[in-house]
Amino acid sequence: MLERYGHGGDLRTAEEAFDIPAQKFVDFSSNMNPFGPPPSVKEVLHHYTETIGQYPDPAVRGLRRKLAEKHDIDENSIVVGNGAAELIDLIVRALQPKLTTLAIPCFDEYGDAIRKTGGAIYEIKLSEHNHFTLHSNFEHLCEAAAAGSLFMLGSPNNPTGQLVDPELIHALLSRGAYVVVDEAFMDFVPDEAKYSLIHEATRNERLFVIRSMTKFYSVPGIRLGYIVGMPRTLSGLKRLQIPWSVNSLAQLIGEAVLDETEYAERTLSWLQDERTWLTSALQALGFEVNPSAANYLLVRIPRNAGLSASMLQLEMGKQGVLIRDASRFPGLDHTYIRIAIKLRTQNEQLLMALSKCLSIRR
Amino acid sequence: MLERYGHGGDLRTAEEAFDIPAQKFVDFSSNMNPFGPPPSVKEVLHHYTETIGQYPDPAVRGLRRKLAEKHDIDENSIVVGNGAAELIDLIVRALQPKLTTLAIPCFDEYGDAIRKTGGAIYEIKLSEHNHFTLHSNFEHLCEAAAAGSLFMLGSPNNPTGQLVDPELIHALLSRGAYVVVDEAFMDFVPDEAKYSLIHEATRNERLFVIRSMTKFYSVPGIRLGYIVGMPRTLSGLKRLQIPWSVNSLAQLIGEAVLDETEYAERTLSWLQDERTWLTSALQALGFEVNPSAANYLLVRIPRNAGLSASMLQLEMGKQGVLIRDASRFPGLDHTYIRIAIKLRTQNEQLLMALSKCLSIRR
Repeated sequence: MLERYGHGGDLRTAEEAFDIPAQKFVDFSSNMNPFGPPPSVKEVLHHYTETIGQYPDPAVRGLRRKLAEKHDIDENSIVVGNGAAELIDLIVRALQPKLTTLAIPCFDEYGDAIRKTGGAIYEIKLSEHNHFTLHSNFEHLCEAAAAGSLFMLGSPNNPTGQLVDPELIHALLSRGAYVVVDEAFMDFVPDEAKYSLIHEATRNERLFVIRSMTKFYSVPGIRLGYIVGMPRTLSGLKRLQIPWSVNSLAQLIGEAVLDETEYAERTLSWLQDERTWLTSALQALGFEVNPSAANYLLVRIPRNAGLSASMLQLEMGKQGVLIRDASRFPGLDHTYIRIAIKLRTQNEQLLMALSKCLSIRR
Repeated sequence: MLERYGHGGDLRTAEEAFDIPAQKFVDFSSNMNPFGPPPSVKEVLHHYTETIGQYPDPAVRGLRRKLAEKHDIDENSIVVGNGAAELIDLIVRALQPKLTTLAIPCFDEYGDAIRKTGGAIYEIKLSEHNHFTLHSNFEHLCEAAAAGSLFMLGSPNNPTGQLVDPELIHALLSRGAYVVVDEAFMDFVPDEAKYSLIHEATRNERLFVIRSMTKFYSVPGIRLGYIVGMPRTLSGLKRLQIPWSVNSLAQLIGEAVLDETEYAERTLSWLQDERTWLTSALQALGFEVNPSAANYLLVRIPRNAGLSASMLQLEMGKQGVLIRDASRFPGLDHTYIRIAIKLRTQNEQLLMALSKCLSIRR
């Protein structure tokens, strides 16, 4: 059980569990861009001794300005946070929802943040037969909206990889709901303008969009995310935020990576090809793969393999390959794993380890 | 007004206010060790590209182990946070005090954290005639303790520089109070064993000690602090903490600097001498200086100078020297400024700028 602290990417726990040094693992359990941090990150680190001795800008002015330019929105519509995790926590504490609807499976932190405030959770279970898409539960969702619920929805959703149709969000908003859309993986979607709700969020006081900068630019070590909404409603959230919540290295890296256009293009082009290739390769081994718009795949272990997700995770870990036991997401059973899409040689390593696990069992 | 976001050290606001680039200021408004980050920090930064692509250890295992060794306490008595600011916020949210006693002047964040939870604040105003020491208010404090109050006390206190007598804390605890002692500047006290309450905090479920690592090691850019208490009571606090709250660079730097014994000794020896020297020099200019156990001085502008703290801050800022307008601390009037103690040449620059401001006015 590597998700001892609720998430993937915990190399320290893996190290303790398998007695293999952290840097030796190939980690498919956290969804980072496999190209690693872009070149400008090294440059920022090289000069960081000059600024580490100063407090971070409490208002994150430089980065907010660059993000505002990128999205063509007002910088006062943006609050930067210590990772998307802080913003999920803050928006829930600011809104204090009595009732929140979650479409499961989804990211654990939505439920965790709500439980901390004592709010009720209404879970709508998405169906595997519909690839865990939301639209098949449309009426169900609209009923909850009419009841004044807050919705927290991932787009693309983690762990399913499915995008949310913006029309569905409009329908929920028009019925009086509050909606938080978690677009942590939206940078991986080539036609993001068709799916992102950032612009709507600057105009609708009941809509908020959360973004992460650490997945696409592969810098989860420093923590960096932002939330977009109307300045008036965001001010309640800012009041709850601790001073200097965002460290200065994160601010500087955030500013630098936004200029990495070549890196961004290379990432989008790699993902398009590699997702198709890895999906086919997994299917050839007998795995069922949920269609995904993101850089990870929700995968079902072959029925005849005689392996649960936790067993497979253990067997893979012994081979130095970390995968996510997705059965720990409410709404999924013991046959589900989640796999990050990485570079070809790493993906081949994954496939080899997986087929070894299958062959032992059969 | 440089404390636009409530604190000193805001070089970005200073830059906007005085049209001088951030790196040109000599900053006496934030209380950092003037030796700058110790050598091992550069070393950690140099290798950080290897770990920035991984999530931080959610349980901060490596650093907690080293801190436990340093203080000779159990590592489960320690929770590490995104700066001391996060831990002040978390302990108040975990304890949800109905009534909190603050001895003013004190660090703004105590009151801010309490106001966020809607708790009542009882302020005891310390007297300048007693150098803002707590013991002259002993009976007053004991009455509040008997009423079930939480106490949040800085030792050394910011901005006064005064240590709290541990006997006073014991007296409050024995009367049923909860006590949070903020020891953010305790590393600067040579005989800290005589004053720190860390060991008592591991044994008393109503006592907590907060420490900062960024002031003594001059790394405020990365955010790093910790709280010590009984594991059982700390678990409520941990439940409120967001995942990966402490970035991995902060964790690595925290581990590294704890081995910097030569740096620590040099700092203690410099401070002893320089505080005495700067105090005399300020007094020679007509300033009143409050006795301080820390690396900063609470200073009163000469009565005949015709300068308020905010005016003096403005005049100093134009000369590229930043000081803290301490009149913004509740409990202090417009005659107070706070000054960090820096290296001799910087201190001389401060004195020159101050005497220039005084001479213009006289």
